[in-house]
Amino acid sequence: MAFKVGLLGLGTVGTGTAQILLDPAQRHPLVKDLEITKVGVRSLDKPRDVDLPQAVFTTDLDAIVTDPDIDIVVEVMGGLEPARSLMLKAIENGKHVVTANKAAIALYSDEIFTAAEKAGVYVLLEAAVGGGIPVIEPLKQSLCSNRITRISGIINGTTNYILTRMKDEGGAFDDILADAQALGYAEADPTADVDGLDAADKIAILASLAFGGRVDRTAVYSEGIRNIAAEDIAYADNLGFVIKLLAVAKRQTTDAGEQLELRVHPTLVPNAHPLSNVNGVYNAIFVEGDPVGQVMFYGPGAGAGPTASAVVADILNIAALLQVERGTAQRADGTPLLDPLLACTHQTDCAIAPIESTETRFYVRLLTQDQPGVIGFVGTCFGEHGVSLASVVQTNRQGDSVEIAVVTHNVQEGKFRQALEKLTAQDSVNDIASVIRVL
Amino acid sequence: MAFKVGLLGLGTVGTGTAQILLDPAQRHPLVKDLEITKVGVRSLDKPRDVDLPQAVFTTDLDAIVTDPDIDIVVEVMGGLEPARSLMLKAIENGKHVVTANKAAIALYSDEIFTAAEKAGVYVLLEAAVGGGIPVIEPLKQSLCSNRITRISGIINGTTNYILTRMKDEGGAFDDILADAQALGYAEADPTADVDGLDAADKIAILASLAFGGRVDRTAVYSEGIRNIAAEDIAYADNLGFVIKLLAVAKRQTTDAGEQLELRVHPTLVPNAHPLSNVNGVYNAIFVEGDPVGQVMFYGPGAGAGPTASAVVADILNIAALLQVERGTAQRADGTPLLDPLLACTHQTDCAIAPIESTETRFYVRLLTQDQPGVIGFVGTCFGEHGVSLASVVQTNRQGDSVEIAVVTHNVQEGKFRQALEKLTAQDSVNDIASVIRVL
Repeated sequence: MAFKVGLLGLGTVGTGTAQILLDPAQRHPLVKDLEITKVGVRSLDKPRDVDLPQAVFTTDLDAIVTDPDIDIVVEVMGGLEPARSLMLKAIENGKHVVTANKAAIALYSDEIFTAAEKAGVYVLLEAAVGGGIPVIEPLKQSLCSNRITRISGIINGTTNYILTRMKDEGGAFDDILADAQALGYAEADPTADVDGLDAADKIAILASLAFGGRVDRTAVYSEGIRNIAAEDIAYADNLGFVIKLLAVAKRQTTDAGEQLELRVHPTLVPNAHPLSNVNGVYNAIFVEGDPVGQVMFYGPGAGAGPTASAVVADILNIAALLQVERGTAQRADGTPLLDPLLACTHQTDCAIAPIESTETRFYVRLLTQDQPGVIGFVGTCFGEHGVSLASVVQTNRQGDSVEIAVVTHNVQEGKFRQALEKLTAQDSVNDIASVIRVL
Repeated sequence: MAFKVGLLGLGTVGTGTAQILLDPAQRHPLVKDLEITKVGVRSLDKPRDVDLPQAVFTTDLDAIVTDPDIDIVVEVMGGLEPARSLMLKAIENGKHVVTANKAAIALYSDEIFTAAEKAGVYVLLEAAVGGGIPVIEPLKQSLCSNRITRISGIINGTTNYILTRMKDEGGAFDDILADAQALGYAEADPTADVDGLDAADKIAILASLAFGGRVDRTAVYSEGIRNIAAEDIAYADNLGFVIKLLAVAKRQTTDAGEQLELRVHPTLVPNAHPLSNVNGVYNAIFVEGDPVGQVMFYGPGAGAGPTASAVVADILNIAALLQVERGTAQRADGTPLLDPLLACTHQTDCAIAPIESTETRFYVRLLTQDQPGVIGFVGTCFGEHGVSLASVVQTNRQGDSVEIAVVTHNVQEGKFRQALEKLTAQDSVNDIASVIRVL
């Protein structure tokens, strides 16, 4: 049973999406059942990084969203229009929709979701927030038993990259923004990122899912990072904090009833908080709920590969549900068909590697006799068995012995053990006190 | 449409599960459709922390797994037997099963999953790994488009608690283990935790899901933390590492073909790695895949509330699929029924709080005239508006001014802004240079 997919757009995310679908090995078996039948592009002549037959390309986007053969329309063109109109037309035509378009969803979710509800189709948007980080589906499914109280997220990679560099280098905002633009981490017009508008789009989407209601995007308070001075980053450090652009959605119970706080602003995050350690272009979403407590989702917030990972996951989730539906929910023997993503699968045995064949770094603490050149001797002994050392720490004497701690480079465990046996047999080595693997 | 749930066991996780189901407000609307109709317990007389009618309690566990009215059997009794036999009997009787039992699944998944496949029922086990952390379902659904290359997890809370305290206090393993036992963080017989057997159960389950095959639990290499000395933790720190008990599953491609590395052992984790910052009883699972890159799931690895959060999520996921199936997949107007967890829902508008009503801490950097008592003056001015200060840093002069950085306690933004206006109007205050909220 094949599911037919129409792609609107073949930019970086669209290309990443097609690359996954054309290379199904070692992914979920259902990937093999997905077929890209049409790809909407602006120019038919542009060279492409994917090996798709020329016949699937078209400049007629309307023909994709109305094609009776297409099951799932994937909107990866971005921008408000024509993305919005095309999604609505796809929905009207009974297509399920997968989109990575946070701006269009944040602004038009009411219209789009109402149309989808009416047509009985799914609109999935995992890629719209946090790039490759699973967060939308976990909020919908894995945390659905919770009463969510607060979401705090680092959900804009550009500003997190700039703030991380400002902290690491002590530089000024303007200089690092200019450099980020030169490197492609920030756009020529950086407004949406540095003024917090992109993060506001995303927190509006997350809040709507977590708190189960419509959220007016224009009501999200947002403050960007343009005014953060190097002095503030230094003071924050001194006080035990790091400055991050956080997007916050929080349930607030007042005498007047319940309302939501929705805000994007620079925030001093305590060093002990899990969000304080999220650096560079990484994103993280910290969710608090009853009874789960605190959970965090961390990963790459953007990029072709990660975003395409989320897009294809959404396509597969729809295909799994369609497979059950089209199988008329029954197998030949009368038992119900199961969702292939949630069912137990364990058709083959995994071959397990013997521990000797694994490769890792090792930390070794050993006690040697207090002789000149003992570090050289240990290094040579390891070297003879192909084990090279990355760092060596020698400490003071312990009685007759000298304590030495070393970290090796990557080595096969079998070879490493041979070297260790050889060392143990040496008169000048009193004891191998510890051996611990290194990540 | 109500879904009937039978609970096997009413210990901490069972009680947490019942508490969620009996208190559906502000959770997913589907929680209201779940009804606990039977609870299997050892003693009918024991006082309970949940308000369930006496009639639902029974000591006859067989009567639960064979009850024709029950849709979903929830196994939260733990242990290998009779948990295994009851799950198999429930499956034979066409019940879907939700379990938190990592040991039984790690050992008997082949038998249990084969029976489930034959009977056409789901066996969901989100709570078996990582307590309340969504990781099983994200691996099955949100990351299904990926070719997973490696999973590295801190998936045993007891050992992570011990290692965290050893690092923070510089103490010895035996002392801290004894204290952890006294505090209830470690069991009287700590073998399963400190020797890595519990983590081995869990990585076997994760590997089976991530790599799509059967995993022989007995082939998992495991080494515990009994031999970790305070010296090793100090050397590791000196070298830029922290020692964690990691469970690793990794795809290894050799000339002989593909095999899996499966190992649990203490590991030196570089300080810059996201896993290095996972402390105390928290767990985290770090997943690497193509094309997603690196993602991490973080949260409470155990406890009644978090584990029950995962158990109820599984129950809801099954109920959602049953609702579609029983609705014969069609609504009255002919459009298909949608999975209520994945469908777009936005029936009500969320009331958004004005920013003035939000409560948070603030960091303020201000420049004042260089006069005696200026810190007292600033403190008094804030105090008059109900803003109390948590920390104050005063630095050297900047020209005619003195720079002062303060962090307030929690305060309503409206009141804080009034205080700030008042301060700005003072002759002795030259400039409010920065105002940044604090998490």
